[in-house]
Amino acid sequence: MDQPVIPSKVDVGALTEVLDGRWGELRKSVRAQMTDSTFREAHDLDTEAHRIQVLEQLRELAKTDRPRLGFEREYGGGGDIGGSVTSFEMLGFGDLSLMVKAGVQWGLFGGAVQLLGTARHHERYLRPIMDLDLPGCFAMTEHGHGSDVQHLRTTATYDPATREFVIDSPDKDAHKEYIGNAARDGKLAVVFAQLVTGGESRGVHAFLVPIRADDDGPVPGVSIEDCGRKAGLNGVDNGRLGFAGVRVPREALLNRYGDVTEDGTYTSPIESDGRRFFTMLGTLIRGRVSVAGSAGNATKRALAIAVRYGEQRRQFFRPGNEEEVVLLDYRAHQRKLMPALAATYALHFAQEELVGALHDIQGADDVDEQRQRELESRAAGIKAVSTWHATRAIQMAREACGGAGYLAENLLPALKADTDVFTTFEGDNTVLLQLVAKGLLTSYKDHFEDLSTLATARFVAEQFVGAVIERTAARQVIERLVDASHDDEDVLFDRGWHVKLFEDREEHVLDGVARRLRRAASEDPFEVFNDAQDHVLRAGRVHVERIVLEAFVAGIDRCPDPDAKALLDHLCDLYVLSTVEADRAWFLEHGRLTAARSKAVVAAVNDLCTQLRPHARTLVDAFAIPEQFLDAAFLSRA
Amino acid sequence: MDQPVIPSKVDVGALTEVLDGRWGELRKSVRAQMTDSTFREAHDLDTEAHRIQVLEQLRELAKTDRPRLGFEREYGGGGDIGGSVTSFEMLGFGDLSLMVKAGVQWGLFGGAVQLLGTARHHERYLRPIMDLDLPGCFAMTEHGHGSDVQHLRTTATYDPATREFVIDSPDKDAHKEYIGNAARDGKLAVVFAQLVTGGESRGVHAFLVPIRADDDGPVPGVSIEDCGRKAGLNGVDNGRLGFAGVRVPREALLNRYGDVTEDGTYTSPIESDGRRFFTMLGTLIRGRVSVAGSAGNATKRALAIAVRYGEQRRQFFRPGNEEEVVLLDYRAHQRKLMPALAATYALHFAQEELVGALHDIQGADDVDEQRQRELESRAAGIKAVSTWHATRAIQMAREACGGAGYLAENLLPALKADTDVFTTFEGDNTVLLQLVAKGLLTSYKDHFEDLSTLATARFVAEQFVGAVIERTAARQVIERLVDASHDDEDVLFDRGWHVKLFEDREEHVLDGVARRLRRAASEDPFEVFNDAQDHVLRAGRVHVERIVLEAFVAGIDRCPDPDAKALLDHLCDLYVLSTVEADRAWFLEHGRLTAARSKAVVAAVNDLCTQLRPHARTLVDAFAIPEQFLDAAFLSRA
Repeated sequence: MDQPVIPSKVDVGALTEVLDGRWGELRKSVRAQMTDSTFREAHDLDTEAHRIQVLEQLRELAKTDRPRLGFEREYGGGGDIGGSVTSFEMLGFGDLSLMVKAGVQWGLFGGAVQLLGTARHHERYLRPIMDLDLPGCFAMTEHGHGSDVQHLRTTATYDPATREFVIDSPDKDAHKEYIGNAARDGKLAVVFAQLVTGGESRGVHAFLVPIRADDDGPVPGVSIEDCGRKAGLNGVDNGRLGFAGVRVPREALLNRYGDVTEDGTYTSPIESDGRRFFTMLGTLIRGRVSVAGSAGNATKRALAIAVRYGEQRRQFFRPGNEEEVVLLDYRAHQRKLMPALAATYALHFAQEELVGALHDIQGADDVDEQRQRELESRAAGIKAVSTWHATRAIQMAREACGGAGYLAENLLPALKADTDVFTTFEGDNTVLLQLVAKGLLTSYKDHFEDLSTLATARFVAEQFVGAVIERTAARQVIERLVDASHDDEDVLFDRGWHVKLFEDREEHVLDGVARRLRRAASEDPFEVFNDAQDHVLRAGRVHVERIVLEAFVAGIDRCPDPDAKALLDHLCDLYVLSTVEADRAWFLEHGRLTAARSKAVVAAVNDLCTQLRPHARTLVDAFAIPEQFLDAAFLSRA
Repeated sequence: MDQPVIPSKVDVGALTEVLDGRWGELRKSVRAQMTDSTFREAHDLDTEAHRIQVLEQLRELAKTDRPRLGFEREYGGGGDIGGSVTSFEMLGFGDLSLMVKAGVQWGLFGGAVQLLGTARHHERYLRPIMDLDLPGCFAMTEHGHGSDVQHLRTTATYDPATREFVIDSPDKDAHKEYIGNAARDGKLAVVFAQLVTGGESRGVHAFLVPIRADDDGPVPGVSIEDCGRKAGLNGVDNGRLGFAGVRVPREALLNRYGDVTEDGTYTSPIESDGRRFFTMLGTLIRGRVSVAGSAGNATKRALAIAVRYGEQRRQFFRPGNEEEVVLLDYRAHQRKLMPALAATYALHFAQEELVGALHDIQGADDVDEQRQRELESRAAGIKAVSTWHATRAIQMAREACGGAGYLAENLLPALKADTDVFTTFEGDNTVLLQLVAKGLLTSYKDHFEDLSTLATARFVAEQFVGAVIERTAARQVIERLVDASHDDEDVLFDRGWHVKLFEDREEHVLDGVARRLRRAASEDPFEVFNDAQDHVLRAGRVHVERIVLEAFVAGIDRCPDPDAKALLDHLCDLYVLSTVEADRAWFLEHGRLTAARSKAVVAAVNDLCTQLRPHARTLVDAFAIPEQFLDAAFLSRA
C-alpha cells in the first residue's frame, strides 16, 4: 500500500484545531490568560520568593471561572468536569508549580470535599475553596505508606462523650508526607485516617481538620514540618503533618460513603471496608488525569524548544557547502526528536479521549460501575505511559540542545526537574501498570486500586477464559481499517495491519500472564506473582500502547483538513513503527515479524524521520504554546 | 555449564580491594580526606554561597599532594598521571561541583599549560597553578562551536611591530561559552583561537590571556558574562568570555606544537593544520577520562542510596505475613537496580583499565601514535557509555525511591542534576560514539577527532578489508575462555560464549557499516553518512560493550578471594545477559539467537536478579563511599 505524499505545507491552525478538540474554546482562553506576564516562570527565585509568586498566580486564576468549572452549579460551579481537567492540563505549558498548586487546591482538596462530602460540607466550604479564601491540603500519603494507602496508620477515633473524632499519628512513620499547601499556606486539610468507633476499625475515611490558626501558626496538636528544597516544583510548599489528639466535630467526617451517628454507630451504603475505600479513591482520579495531561504539555514545550534549536543551530560543514549543517538535518538528531514527537501526538489524542470519557461517565446521573473501573484503568495506564514518556523525551530534548540545554535561562532544566516526580506521584507508575493488567485480567469485575494478590489469583484461576480486546475509540473506523487490511508484502504502512498487530500482541501477552498466574491458586501466590511481575507490567504497557494507537486513529479520522490529515497519518505511522521497533524483539520471538520485516521496520522509521523532518516546526507550532514559555535565551539570542 | 553457587556471605573488603585496584592507596587517602565536614555537600545554598564553599573545598584540596600528581616532578609535580585522574574521579563521590572545578583548574587549565606549553610556561605558571594561587580557565568552546571546535572563530593575530598577539571575538557567536572558573574566580585563561600571521591562518592554537585584573574586574578588552543558574553544578562559576583587541606578548602562545618567530614566521613540527590541532586535542583527554570516572562514582552513590532504601522501605503485605514486603524483594524493583549495578561494576573495571593505559601510554618516553589514538578512542567510547549509563541509572534510582527520592535532603536530586551535563560536555556523546566507529573503520590510521566525511569515506573505500577484533585486556584469559567454550544447549552462562557473541556482533555491525559507507566514495558522501548514522552509532556502542566485558573478565581474573570472585562472576553474567537482552532484537534478526534462546536470556536475567538480590548491600558497600555522602535523611530517619 503506497503512502500518500505529505503536502509541502500544512496549515498550523488546522492542526491546532484538531488537537484542541472538544474543549478548544477553553484552551484558547487559558492561553490568552497565560500570555500575561503575571504567569512568567521563575528560574532565579529562592524557595520563598517562588512560593509567593505561585500563590499570586493562583490568586489570578481564582479571578477567572476556570477553577469553578469542576464543581456543581448549585454552589457556583460550572458543572463541566472535562473543562476543569483541561484547564489544569493547560497550566502544564507554564510553571508546573502553579499547575500542581492549583491541582492541590481545586482538584484534590476541593475535589475531596465535593466528592466525598455531602451537602453540609458543600454549603459551607465549596465557595471559599473556589475563591481561594480557604487554602487547603489533601493529606493522604504517609511517610510509611504511599502506594499502599489502604494501610495508612493515622487514626480518627470517635468519642461519643464529646461527639468528636480524635485524630492521631501513632508515630513519625504515620505522619502525612509531601503534602502540598501544608508547609506555608494551607488552613484546612482533608485528612485520610482509619476510622475507629466502638473499639472497631472501619477502614480509611476522610476528615476535615484545621491545621493552621488565624495567626498562621499550627493549630494545637498539629505539627507542621517543611519538606524543604525539592528537585523541582519549589513553588509548591510541601510539608509534613503530624496529629496528637486533635479533636474535630463529628461533622468533620466527609460522610458520603460512611457515617457515624451521635452514639457512635457506623453506617455505610457499602459494606466492605476495602470496597468502600476503593470506591472513594475511584472518585478522585481527576488529579491523575490532570497530571498525565500536564506531563504531555510539558513534553510539547520541551520538544518545541528543541526543534526550534535544532533548526537554528549549525555544526560541521557538509563537503562542498559554504554553510554548516543544521542539527535537525542529521539522522541521529531526527532519531532523538521525531519519534518522541509522534508519541507526544499519540498520547495527546489518548488524553483528550480520556478526558471526554471522564466527563461523560462522572457527569452521568447514574454511576456505571463497570465503565467507571475501565475509566480508572485507562487513567492509570495513560498516566504511567505519559509521565515516563515525558521524563525520557524531556531528557532527550535537553541533550539535543547540548550545553545550552543545561542553562536555566533556556528553560529545559526546570521542565526536567519539575516533571521528574510525575512518574512516582499520583500513583507510582510501576504500581499503576500492574493495576491496569489486573483490571484486564479480572475484566474490571474486581475493585480497581486493590492489589491484593490472593483475590486476583483466585479470580484469574476461576474466571479468566482468554483476553478480550475491547476497542475503545472510534470502533467503526478501526473495524473498517482492520477489514481492509491485507497481510501482503507491503503492510508496513497499512493502518489495519498496525491495529491487528497491537491487538494480537496484547491478547497474547495477556493470555500468557493469565497462564502463569493461574499457578498462584495452588502455589505460593506471592512467589508466583513476583516471578511474573515483569510480564504483568508488559501486559499493562502493551494494552496502553494499543488504546493510544486507537485514539490517534480516531483523532485523524476527525480531522477535516486533508493536508493536516495526511501529515498526521505519517506521524501515526512513525508512532506505530517506532513503537514496534522498540519492542521488535518480542515480535521476533513470537513469530509475529520475520527478521527481514523487522529490519524493514527500522528502515521505515528512518525514512519517516526524513519525510517528517521538514514538518517538524509545523508540528510543534500546532501545540500553540504561549510564546513566553518558549522564550529560551538561546533562541532569542540568535 | 553449571554456574558455581554464590557463597552466602562475601567479604566486603575483598571486593573493595579488587575494585580499588592499581591506585588503591590513593583512593583510600581521598576517602579519608572526604570524610571531613569541609567536604559536605550543599543542597540548600544559593549560587554565590555554593561557589564560595566549593572554592574553599578546592583550597583544602590544594593543601594535599593530589592536585600535583599529574605534573612533572621537576616543577613540584608527582609524575603520576593515573593517580591524578583517579584522584579527580574519587571526587565524584562528593559534591560534583568540586570535581568539575578541580578538573577545570588542574586538569584542563593546568593540563593545557603543561601539555601544550614549553619550559618557559612551565617554569612560570605550574607552581602557582598547583597551589591555586593562579586560578584559571580553559576557554575552548564558543557559543557557535562546541562539537566542531576546529572551526571556532576567535582569532589571535600576530603583530610583528609590537611582537604581540591580538585576540578578537568577531561576534557574539564566537564568544567563549560555559567556561568554568570564568564568572567569578579565574585570573588567566588558556584561550583557543585561530592563529593568524602574515595574513595567513594557521589553525587553532592556545594562548595564555589574562582575564581578570588584580581588582577582580575584567582586563580591558575582555568581557565577562555569568552563565547564571544551571540545572546543576551551581558551585562552578561558568561564564562567557569575549575579546576585543586584547594584546598578549608573543610568549603567551603555548608553543609546543607551533610557534611564531619575532618577525612573524610560523613554524611547527607538524605540517598539516588539522593534524596539528587533533594532536593537541589528543593530549588533553585526561578531562574526558576523569568525567567518565566521576560519572561512575556518582552512579555508585545513587545506587548505594537506592539499595539501602530498597532494603528498608516496606510496602504491601504478603498473604499470610505480618510484616510488609521490602521493596528490593519485588522483581520489578530488582529489575530496576540489579542490572544497573552490574553495568556499574563492568564500567568500573573498564575505567580502571583505561586509566592504567592512559598512565602507561602518556607516561612513556616515546609517543606511540597508534596506541595514543586507540586510547583516545577508548576514552571517548567509555565516556559516552558511562555518562549515558549514569543518567539512566540515577534516574532509575530516583524513581526507585519514590517521592522521597525527590527531596533534596535525600541527595538524589543533586546527583541527577549535576551529572546530567556529563552526556554532552567534554565531547557530546553522540559525536564521541561516531568517532569511536571512525577509529575502528580506519584502524586508527586517521587522526582521531577529525570527523571530516570525505576523508573517512575515501579511507573506508580504499583500505577497509574487514573488521579486526583486537582484544584489549587480559588477552590470554579471554582466549582461554573462548577456546574452552562449546556452543551446546547450555551456553548462557559460558563466559567464552559471551565473549564470542560480543566479538561476532561487533565484527558484523562494523562490516555492515563499512559496506554502506563505501558508497560514499561515489555518491554524495554526506547523504550516505547521514543515512547510516544510526548504524555508525551502533558500531561505536557494540564495540564499547565488548571492551567493557573484556575488562570485567580481566578484573575477575585478578581477584584473589574465591568468594568475591564467585559473586563477581554472577554479576558479570548479569551484565552480559542484560546487555544481550536489551539488544536481543539484533541477535534475533541476524540469526545469532533462536527465539527460544532469546526468551531464555530474559528468564536468566530474572533468575540472576533473584540470586544476586541478597548480595545487593554487599555490592554497594564495596564501593566504600564515605558515609557522609550516603547520609540521606530518609535513611537516618528510619
